[in-house]
Amino acid sequence: MTVQQESPAETPQADAPVPVYFVAESTGISAEAMGNALLVQFPGIVFERKRIPFIHSIQDARRAVSILDAAMDGPRQPIVFTTIADDTIRAVLGMSRAPIIDFVTSHLGRLEDLLGTSALHLAVQAHGLGDQRRYDRRMKAVEYAIEHDDGESMRQYADADVILLAPSRCGKTPTTMYLALQHSVFVANYPLVPEDLTGLDLPAPVATLRTRCFGILTTPERLSQVRNERKPDSTYSSIEQCTWELKRAEKLFRAQRIPTVNSSAKSVEEMSTVILQHLGRT
Amino acid sequence: MTVQQESPAETPQADAPVPVYFVAESTGISAEAMGNALLVQFPGIVFERKRIPFIHSIQDARRAVSILDAAMDGPRQPIVFTTIADDTIRAVLGMSRAPIIDFVTSHLGRLEDLLGTSALHLAVQAHGLGDQRRYDRRMKAVEYAIEHDDGESMRQYADADVILLAPSRCGKTPTTMYLALQHSVFVANYPLVPEDLTGLDLPAPVATLRTRCFGILTTPERLSQVRNERKPDSTYSSIEQCTWELKRAEKLFRAQRIPTVNSSAKSVEEMSTVILQHLGRT
Repeated sequence: MTVQQESPAETPQADAPVPVYFVAESTGISAEAMGNALLVQFPGIVFERKRIPFIHSIQDARRAVSILDAAMDGPRQPIVFTTIADDTIRAVLGMSRAPIIDFVTSHLGRLEDLLGTSALHLAVQAHGLGDQRRYDRRMKAVEYAIEHDDGESMRQYADADVILLAPSRCGKTPTTMYLALQHSVFVANYPLVPEDLTGLDLPAPVATLRTRCFGILTTPERLSQVRNERKPDSTYSSIEQCTWELKRAEKLFRAQRIPTVNSSAKSVEEMSTVILQHLGRT
Repeated sequence: MTVQQESPAETPQADAPVPVYFVAESTGISAEAMGNALLVQFPGIVFERKRIPFIHSIQDARRAVSILDAAMDGPRQPIVFTTIADDTIRAVLGMSRAPIIDFVTSHLGRLEDLLGTSALHLAVQAHGLGDQRRYDRRMKAVEYAIEHDDGESMRQYADADVILLAPSRCGKTPTTMYLALQHSVFVANYPLVPEDLTGLDLPAPVATLRTRCFGILTTPERLSQVRNERKPDSTYSSIEQCTWELKRAEKLFRAQRIPTVNSSAKSVEEMSTVILQHLGRT
């Protein structure tokens, strides 16, 4: 065990981050998502996360074991999360001295009972190409999102599942990309410029598409801060201008009965989930 | 129970999809990722997935219970996956007649033992805004990716963590967006046009950035198919042209010792994982 020199604490290892490994046959995305959902329950502890993906063979598993056993000799005991479904490969991983939380076997038996059939117990790529047509649609959604980002092109707004409306820099683009990439939603977004905000009518390019519109709002403080990074000390980024644009946008959304979400309080994932709920796609 | 009329099968409900619910305090992303990693182990069964996100209160939980109990009266018994960490809210959910696979409590006790401390047992947003500075960096990565997509602007290639190189339509953009959005990586991408492919030198805009380059290749058949959708029956999409471009690109990557990944065999998630491994960021 490595012990720090002249450590002021009684337990010298208590300050070191806890190494966390996500070991998987494929990308490790599921193991990481689920592991993180558990780790957030321990806000007082600092974790150092590392994925060990693409464990396809016994040799790969042995390599993982040597990484995990080396971590066991470090200042803090590591924690290993795994989704390895292949019984042989998991058995090799189990030879590690590190404690392993196994997301698959702990639930697969119960699922087999519920579904009345045996699970494969083999590596299956949960994040592989999968169905090529579904995958292609997802890629097309990304393409569409880029072509219709920030009012770039309005040619095919009619193809949009949803059109995000907001004043400049409210956070339309990341949510657009997330919905396209993760949910194959065809998303366009349109920036409400000050001229669009003088009245209560929808701007011409989206005027006939009201029911597909979704508004994004934020706080004047946050908007001013984000705009200042782009154009410091400009009218555009002044708190007065930001306040005016947000107030007018909110009025417009209310008048047009367009649902809204606030990007200052919600992450891209949360906003996307709200929008998907609205679309009936959760 | 709903029974289909004149069903030809002995067990009329066997053909109906199994309803799957992901119930969560926040977005449900973790529950869905982990649930899907289990469901892929049952390739013979069709599942109909639905998220029930934002279960914040006892009232929300009661609403979820009524959805789940209604599903219990359908043709197939539903399966519920949950990550609800709040003990009170989970207790309400547990009143449903539907079988629940609980990802949190089944592992939290073990984690508490391993970490020597109590978990919060409260709702924590695993996909919320979290640390604002880290979140902002992620948003900046998306902005950077859009500005430096497809050779749009080459101004700030020097800021890139990685520059994806490939002939047109090999799938640079979705991988670029995924790495930016999910991993805050600053990714530029540069399209290798035929003029870039005549020799073995890197194109001028990336010539001094060789060590940050990563190549994407695909099969001529796949490339021709994707290009045909954009420009049918053109030289650009002919199998001859695609074969030539891919062969020359491969030679260039080999000559310059640029690592590559093949987009015809790998999903965006898998390619991104390979690239993150190369960057030492997994």
